Amino acid sequence: MSGFSFKLLATDGAARRGEITTPHGKVRTPAFMPVGTQATVKALYPEQVSQAGADIVLANTYHLMLRPGAERIAALGGLHRFMNWDGPILTDSGGFQVMSLAKLRKVSDKGVTFQSHLDGSTHQLTPERAVEIQTLLGADIQMQLDECIASPATRAEAMRAMRLSLLWAERARKSFSAAGGQALFGIVQGNVFEDLRTESARTLSGMDFAGHAVGGLAVGEGQALMLEVLDFTVPLLPADRPRYLMGVGTPEDILESVARGIDMFDCVIPTRAGRHGHAYTRFGRLNLRNARHADDARPLDAESACPAANAFSRAYLHHLIKAGEHLGAMALSWANIAYYEGLMAGIREAISEGRFDEFRRRTLADLARGEDFAER
Amino acid sequence: MSGFSFKLLATDGAARRGEITTPHGKVRTPAFMPVGTQATVKALYPEQVSQAGADIVLANTYHLMLRPGAERIAALGGLHRFMNWDGPILTDSGGFQVMSLAKLRKVSDKGVTFQSHLDGSTHQLTPERAVEIQTLLGADIQMQLDECIASPATRAEAMRAMRLSLLWAERARKSFSAAGGQALFGIVQGNVFEDLRTESARTLSGMDFAGHAVGGLAVGEGQALMLEVLDFTVPLLPADRPRYLMGVGTPEDILESVARGIDMFDCVIPTRAGRHGHAYTRFGRLNLRNARHADDARPLDAESACPAANAFSRAYLHHLIKAGEHLGAMALSWANIAYYEGLMAGIREAISEGRFDEFRRRTLADLARGEDFAER
Repeated sequence: MSGFSFKLLATDGAARRGEITTPHGKVRTPAFMPVGTQATVKALYPEQVSQAGADIVLANTYHLMLRPGAERIAALGGLHRFMNWDGPILTDSGGFQVMSLAKLRKVSDKGVTFQSHLDGSTHQLTPERAVEIQTLLGADIQMQLDECIASPATRAEAMRAMRLSLLWAERARKSFSAAGGQALFGIVQGNVFEDLRTESARTLSGMDFAGHAVGGLAVGEGQALMLEVLDFTVPLLPADRPRYLMGVGTPEDILESVARGIDMFDCVIPTRAGRHGHAYTRFGRLNLRNARHADDARPLDAESACPAANAFSRAYLHHLIKAGEHLGAMALSWANIAYYEGLMAGIREAISEGRFDEFRRRTLADLARGEDFAER
Repeated sequence: MSGFSFKLLATDGAARRGEITTPHGKVRTPAFMPVGTQATVKALYPEQVSQAGADIVLANTYHLMLRPGAERIAALGGLHRFMNWDGPILTDSGGFQVMSLAKLRKVSDKGVTFQSHLDGSTHQLTPERAVEIQTLLGADIQMQLDECIASPATRAEAMRAMRLSLLWAERARKSFSAAGGQALFGIVQGNVFEDLRTESARTLSGMDFAGHAVGGLAVGEGQALMLEVLDFTVPLLPADRPRYLMGVGTPEDILESVARGIDMFDCVIPTRAGRHGHAYTRFGRLNLRNARHADDARPLDAESACPAANAFSRAYLHHLIKAGEHLGAMALSWANIAYYEGLMAGIREAISEGRFDEFRRRTLADLARGEDFAER
C-alpha cells in the first residue's frame, strides 16, 4: 500500500497537471470527484462511475455518521467495501452539511452540536470526532472540520468563523494519524475578504497539511466574486500540495478555476441535473423534458464513450423523463458524469500540451453558443 | 431474418422444453419475460436485462400508444431501436390495461373506446388497430385484442366477454400479416368456467394462431383456482405451439404452471418488488427494509452470477433502501430479474434431464423453508 503523495507533472500558466497517489490508487489532476453523498453516486453503479473516467469519489461524513453510522461501516469493512468502490475516496468533514441541513445547531469552541435532519436526535462533531469518523470510514483523503457560515456575511462574522476553523485545523492535525497512508486537508475560510483569506491560507500553509481546500465559496456569491477570491487566495497555497475547490461547480466554473491553479473539484450538479432531466453536452445544457426532443433520433453525443450518451436517442430520453422512468435519471446522471470527466480529461491533456488557454476559450465558446448554432 | 417458429426439444410429464425463433433471435422456453411497460424494464439498463439471462421482454401497447405514440416509435425506427433492445419483444394488445387503468371505457362489438389515464384524451382500440399498433412498434410477437373482465365474474358475463374475444381473435387474425416474420397469439378467456374455457380454447385452436395465451388469470382468484383452470385448459391447446400464461407470477406459480405445460410467462413482480425493497432469492423473499439486515455483510446470493446479487452486501442494500437511493431499487430489480431468469434456466435444464418434478419439489421446499432455516 502506497501512502499519500502529490506529483506536479506540468504547468501551463497557473493551470497544473498532476497526480495524487493514495492507498487506493492514483488520481489524475485536475480531477472532478462525483459526489456519493450517502455512499452511492446517485443513480449510478460504481462501475459506471469508474467507466465514466472518475478516479475518485466524495462521500459525506454528515450523512454517513447519521445513517448507517461510521462505526457500522467500519465493522462492515470500511466505506470502500460498503459501497463497492475500490478507488480513492475523499470524505468531507460534515461541517458544510451541519450548516445546510441540521436543525438547532450550536457552535462552540469545542465543536458543533446539532440535531439530525432525519430523526431529530442530537449529535456532536468536534475536530477530533470528524477525524475519528473519517478514519472509521477509511477515507483516503480526510477534510478538517471547519465552520461554514451563511453568505453574505459580515467581516466580523467571517473573521470569527475563519479563526475558529484555524483552531479546529490545528486540533484535527494533532488527532489525525497518517499511519495508514491517508491524508488530511486543511480548509481556507474567510469568505470574500482578502485579508481574512490571506490570514487563513498563510496559517494553514504552516501546518503541513497534505493538501489545501478553498471552502465557503459557490454559496451564492456568483462566479465573478468567486474567481476574485481564487485570484488572491490560490497563490498563497503551497505549490507542492493539491488544491481543492469545494462544491464547485459548472463546467465554466471548473475551466476558470483550473486557470487559477485549482486541482480538485466536487459538485452534485451533474447527478442532480440528470435526475431533473438535464443533460450536459459539449454544446451546453439540454432540458430533455422539452418537447423539441420528442422526435429527435440523435444521441446526446455520438462521440462520447459513455453508452448513456451515445446509444440512447434524445427521443427515448425525453420519453423516459416524461414517463418518470428510473432509466431516465440513471442514463442522464451517467452521461453527465461522463461529460464532466471528459471535460477534465480534455483539461489535463491541454495542460500537458501547453495549450490550456486555447482549450479553455474554445470550450467556453462551444458551451455558450449551443448546439443548434453549431449545426447551422 | 428468420420467421417465427417453435420447436419442442423435450418433455417431462406435461412440462416442456422448447425454443422459439423470432426475427430478433431465439427464446429458450420455458421463458420468463421481464416487463418493460413503458419501453424500459424499470430501473434496468437493457444490457442488464440480457445479462440476467432474459431472451425476450414484454412491452405494453396501451402505455406506448398513449405515450410516446406508436407512429412516433415507428418513425424513430421501431421499438427495438427506441429502447435499445436487440432481442425479441412481445407486446400485449392493450386490453388488460384498458380494463385496469383507463377511465370511462365503453366496450362494443367494434372495439373499446376509453379515456387516457394520463390526460383524459379519448382513444379507440379495435382488434385491427391493436394489430396495427403492434406492427408499428415492430413486435416479434403480437397479442390479439381481448376483453378482460373483472374477477370474480358471473358465468353470463364471462361467456359474453369470451365470445366477444373470439370474434376479435378472428378479426385480428385477418388483419395481421406475418410477412415480416412476426407472430400473432390468440388468447383463451372464459374466467374459471370449464365449459367456457373449453369453447374458447377449441375455437382458437382452429384459427391457426402461432401461439396461444391463457388470459384472465392471476387477477385475484388464488393459485389453487388458477391451477385448476390450467388443468382443464392447457391440454386443449395445440402441443406444437407455445403456450403463454399472461401476467404470472410468483416463483411458485411459475413452477406449478410449467408442470402443467406452460411455456411463457411475464410479470411485474420482480421489478416491482425490487423497487419496494424486496429481494427474491433461492430461499424465499427478503424485505431489505427490515433492520435485521443492517449489519449483514453477506450478499443476497454469493452463487448468483448477477453483480447486484453477489457483490453488494445486504447491509448496503438495506442502507440504500432506507435512504431512498436510486441504486437500491436498481440493484434489487436487477437481482430479482436475475433470480427469475436463473429459476427458468434451472427449470429448462431439469426438463431436459427428465428431473423436473424433483427440481420443482426441491425448489418449492427451499422457497418455503427460508434461508435462516437452511443455515441453522
